[in-house]
Amino acid sequence: MTGMEKITYRPARDEFAYTFGGRMPVAHVRSGDVLEVFTEDCFGGLVRGPGDLPSQVCRMPYLNPVSGPFFVEDAEPGDTLAIHLASIMPARDWGVSSTFPHFGALTSTSHTATLQPPLQERVWMYGIDRQAGTVRFQATDTDHTVDLPLDPMIGTIGVAPGGMEARSTVVPDIHGGNLDTPHLRAGSTLYLGVNVHGAMLALGDGHACQGEGEACGVGVEIATTTTLIIEVIKGAPMVWPRLETNTSIMSIGCARPLEDAYRIAHHDLVGWVSTLTGLGTLDAYQLVSQAGRAPIGNVCDPNYTILAAVDKALLPAPAAAYDGVHARLRQSAAGCGRGDGR
Amino acid sequence: MTGMEKITYRPARDEFAYTFGGRMPVAHVRSGDVLEVFTEDCFGGLVRGPGDLPSQVCRMPYLNPVSGPFFVEDAEPGDTLAIHLASIMPARDWGVSSTFPHFGALTSTSHTATLQPPLQERVWMYGIDRQAGTVRFQATDTDHTVDLPLDPMIGTIGVAPGGMEARSTVVPDIHGGNLDTPHLRAGSTLYLGVNVHGAMLALGDGHACQGEGEACGVGVEIATTTTLIIEVIKGAPMVWPRLETNTSIMSIGCARPLEDAYRIAHHDLVGWVSTLTGLGTLDAYQLVSQAGRAPIGNVCDPNYTILAAVDKALLPAPAAAYDGVHARLRQSAAGCGRGDGR
Amino acid sequence: MTGMEKITYRPARDEFAYTFGGRMPVAHVRSGDVLEVFTEDCFGGLVRGPGDLPSQVCRMPYLNPVSGPFFVEDAEPGDTLAIHLASIMPARDWGVSSTFPHFGALTSTSHTATLQPPLQERVWMYGIDRQAGTVRFQATDTDHTVDLPLDPMIGTIGVAPGGMEARSTVVPDIHGGNLDTPHLRAGSTLYLGVNVHGAMLALGDGHACQGEGEACGVGVEIATTTTLIIEVIKGAPMVWPRLETNTSIMSIGCARPLEDAYRIAHHDLVGWVSTLTGLGTLDAYQLVSQAGRAPIGNVCDPNYTILAAVDKALLPAPAAAYDGVHARLRQSAAGCGRGDGR
Amino acid sequence: MTGMEKITYRPARDEFAYTFGGRMPVAHVRSGDVLEVFTEDCFGGLVRGPGDLPSQVCRMPYLNPVSGPFFVEDAEPGDTLAIHLASIMPARDWGVSSTFPHFGALTSTSHTATLQPPLQERVWMYGIDRQAGTVRFQATDTDHTVDLPLDPMIGTIGVAPGGMEARSTVVPDIHGGNLDTPHLRAGSTLYLGVNVHGAMLALGDGHACQGEGEACGVGVEIATTTTLIIEVIKGAPMVWPRLETNTSIMSIGCARPLEDAYRIAHHDLVGWVSTLTGLGTLDAYQLVSQAGRAPIGNVCDPNYTILAAVDKALLPAPAAAYDGVHARLRQSAAGCGRGDGR
Repeated sequence: MTGMEKITYRPARDEFAYTFGGRMPVAHVRSGDVLEVFTEDCFGGLVRGPGDLPSQVCRMPYLNPVSGPFFVEDAEPGDTLAIHLASIMPARDWGVSSTFPHFGALTSTSHTATLQPPLQERVWMYGIDRQAGTVRFQATDTDHTVDLPLDPMIGTIGVAPGGMEARSTVVPDIHGGNLDTPHLRAGSTLYLGVNVHGAMLALGDGHACQGEGEACGVGVEIATTTTLIIEVIKGAPMVWPRLETNTSIMSIGCARPLEDAYRIAHHDLVGWVSTLTGLGTLDAYQLVSQAGRAPIGNVCDPNYTILAAVDKALLPAPAAAYDGVHARLRQSAAGCGRGDGR
Repeated sequence: MTGMEKITYRPARDEFAYTFGGRMPVAHVRSGDVLEVFTEDCFGGLVRGPGDLPSQVCRMPYLNPVSGPFFVEDAEPGDTLAIHLASIMPARDWGVSSTFPHFGALTSTSHTATLQPPLQERVWMYGIDRQAGTVRFQATDTDHTVDLPLDPMIGTIGVAPGGMEARSTVVPDIHGGNLDTPHLRAGSTLYLGVNVHGAMLALGDGHACQGEGEACGVGVEIATTTTLIIEVIKGAPMVWPRLETNTSIMSIGCARPLEDAYRIAHHDLVGWVSTLTGLGTLDAYQLVSQAGRAPIGNVCDPNYTILAAVDKALLPAPAAAYDGVHARLRQSAAGCGRGDGR
Repeated sequence: MTGMEKITYRPARDEFAYTFGGRMPVAHVRSGDVLEVFTEDCFGGLVRGPGDLPSQVCRMPYLNPVSGPFFVEDAEPGDTLAIHLASIMPARDWGVSSTFPHFGALTSTSHTATLQPPLQERVWMYGIDRQAGTVRFQATDTDHTVDLPLDPMIGTIGVAPGGMEARSTVVPDIHGGNLDTPHLRAGSTLYLGVNVHGAMLALGDGHACQGEGEACGVGVEIATTTTLIIEVIKGAPMVWPRLETNTSIMSIGCARPLEDAYRIAHHDLVGWVSTLTGLGTLDAYQLVSQAGRAPIGNVCDPNYTILAAVDKALLPAPAAAYDGVHARLRQSAAGCGRGDGR
Repeated sequence: MTGMEKITYRPARDEFAYTFGGRMPVAHVRSGDVLEVFTEDCFGGLVRGPGDLPSQVCRMPYLNPVSGPFFVEDAEPGDTLAIHLASIMPARDWGVSSTFPHFGALTSTSHTATLQPPLQERVWMYGIDRQAGTVRFQATDTDHTVDLPLDPMIGTIGVAPGGMEARSTVVPDIHGGNLDTPHLRAGSTLYLGVNVHGAMLALGDGHACQGEGEACGVGVEIATTTTLIIEVIKGAPMVWPRLETNTSIMSIGCARPLEDAYRIAHHDLVGWVSTLTGLGTLDAYQLVSQAGRAPIGNVCDPNYTILAAVDKALLPAPAAAYDGVHARLRQSAAGCGRGDGR
């Protein structure tokens, strides 16, 4: 952890990645390094006004660009990568959302296929006021304007998948990817199992804010400057992504139908609670059943995302997940002036 | 509303109902009446210790008893019933939870049928301290004890379904029923469409607390004394149940797979927001997509339940749902000393 | 079986039922009786030309009328009712199909709710030639005409559900109901568990033919004269509906999502094969996995339907289901000139 | 088409592929070439007796090896590859099936995650008699033996996916892959959209027979010698895989939940019928609804598979799909002595 370096990376236009896996690394990082990354929005920055319909200005499959991958030294299959989100700063004073033909929760889609024509494709521009901490919604049919709380998150973050696969950055799955949960905000530590030599971490798809489920299929999409601190946890194989905050531990499930995302997340959380605390499996199941929360991430992507969360305060003391790496990284973040301040 | 009466109802052992629909009313109530009801727990009060395995002491289909139905005067098909939950008091100083063979989210079930044997059936007894506002979890395999916040809710509340149906009280659907959401707490107003002459309201299945999804299939089950104030909203046909609190409006969807519960709830909320505020449908869709919450009710009952919620503060002023009935009933509740105090 | 009677029943217009359960019987039948029933089509006979749009000429919930219920003497909870479909004759020389707003597999629906408007509602009239055994499809936008094979089936047949429920005739579930499978054709024997004193059998919703899944939500709907022979199998409790033909045994699962219908049906068939043949559970699972068929019934009703089927010829001889009741009833049918002739 | 060559390929042990995409080609083929390929079984030939438990003798992710990929000359994105399965010959006189921990339709799985332990892992060996055309099932708990009809199929066949992805050979999706449908038998022509320069066709995972849904997760797995004839159809972009036999056209949908596989397949078939015949969309929907079949492929793989099929005889003459390529390739197959003889 000594000698922590700060690495800054801003991809050129043709350096973005559109898959996890199958790509050469853009930079090397080590445990304890601070990584400051520019991330472009999900439209590659091409949707800048109501006339820029995504299906016209974007070209498939060049959607949801991520910055990376970063080769993490000493990360091997069987290890876990702890990624502390030290800060997520909107890079511009605007964000953008839209409907997209046959994509989203309240429309038929490529998979929930019907004979109905798509909903109208439309763009909403949002003003972002970093000082005030607001995201301004402006109705398009009427005059209504309202300020939503600015709550920046990273929609897409992941490592190279196992099994020699390469997956579109639009997909959330066991390797992370397009998780699209508001809980990937500054102050959180994400845990991802390492599948390949060097892990190959990449991220993008910032949202200024996002409702639970991302109903229309698109958040308030922003470019960001995101600061991460990374640590390799050796010999800690993991299956599904996990998340830790100051107050909670959470497991993330990605699947269709949506109940399988719920099952995966809760199955993992029950096991995690049991391991951390020494509670028997049925006791952990019972405790999570009465005290757990199940925040929905997305109900629009190729896999849906649900988290299972429980307050650390309810667990037998003093178990700290992964030897307290979250607290340690949070301190590092504070030390370099990038902590979330919570 | 003048001349509001207080009606107290405590069913005898053989007076409980096990269906919504197909039952004669136990009492008549009028708009504005205060109704104080004793509700038994989902096990009919028969599970009182670790040795009382539900599958042995309960006899199917005599599970999930409800108190009622109450005939609501002047409630006709095409009207909506507003039901303000003025208070929900645990009736005993204990609650109970359990696993149940092939029931719950982390087991195969009668419908997600597999060849695996069931998980072990086990009972957890909880101590309830109304003064301290706590629900004490006691592990069964180890010594861990922890106090969860007491947050009483009504799991099952509904009216007679339409189409001449009678539905088991275990089922949540368009008529309400076993919704199993923690948002049915004191201070909330529930809206249910009336399907039959007199509406035929009934309720039961209190929980001292419940995690999102009710993973193991059973909350911390309690008997309650619950106080309601009812108002008939004439000429307001409704499709799916809705909920209002001081700060939010919510729509409730019940379906399998879970994404359909999400779709139903959000489809209804988008329409409701649009009607209340004059926002166009796509604008309402966009606003809910960025600012909405989607709390999960249950992922274990015959239909799963998800709510779609949005803060009233984000909507164009000064639309009040159903002519402000929530505020009115809340005042009535305060007036008779039963308000939730929020 | 001696003294078998023939009972003929033709309901008056106001005698049809719209639920299973919650209805008084229209006639009594005994084991071995031959029951000849007129069934109306799912539209109550009201859709007779392209101008009769179902959503306009039909009034909810008066859809899918069934004839009955018939009180079956000596049928008690814990018994099984064997119902041999001796013949299903189209009662008119035409059938009718349609699209219906927000109903069907290739449209969003009340539950798979989207913001899209419905597909156009349209009616197709079919000519039925009983002599030639054909059902004539006539395109509505162009001139194409083609004769489909006449293959009459009963879409809806069931008994009163358990748990004091009454269910809409539109619903297929554990009590039978709107199963909508082409395998309910003449020559088949259906097994239904008895839930209430007298079983309360009812049927309707004939189709001249139907594709697997009933994609548009509506078959070629016909009125029929259907002849059944019934036998009560004492002390044979059953869970899900089963079907037997001369060559196969089949289990029927009804659920959403569709994979749960598959799981239910296969779980039941594996158990049935194991019980009938003495094969171990895993051996039965293996044999069904390699030799089973899984014909889809409907993918449009409130529950979807899948059958799991296996050829009797592949099972260890000479197990006959339910003491050979299928063969016995088939002989009775032949004896009264109503056999399917296969 | 003149100058058609015969190319024979038998991979060495370390030449098998475990993904579609992300691999260099093993050989080049041209339109009209006859390709004879050895395919290994899904276990890599390592499970040869009851003691060879797959989870012990196989090493993840080295499951479901495919032979290839083959670079198809002149195949470009926007084209369609027609692949005629001229013959599929079992390469050995035995096949093998098994249960596998937490995999299959009648068990909880990695995604339908529960707290239950797995079913027992067990191996079944089958004798294959090519002369008699039989596959012999031998029970493991009792003495029962029965001969199933030999009906060889290719479980896994696909091209490189689009979007720069590489997908595990265990996955069926829009690029083909682990479709696991018995309709991939000799005599069928499969159509796959080309996503990358050279298409990159690969195949493996033969089954001597398989029930609909592949309930236990594993067919009667065999090594094969499979003969294909390939033709590139220029300028015919395709979305989902399609299949043609002498009598039927079929569309293949791969998704979870299972109803989405049904929707995808039927949505595609309705469009295909409409395009081929000039029928309006609603007329095509209606015809498929009454005359269509929906054979289930698998209900165990990462995506489930359903086909939508309609008899060509029911369609307005004389539309031949893709300019009659199926008939043409069938003739070529007969010409080189490899036709299916139907």
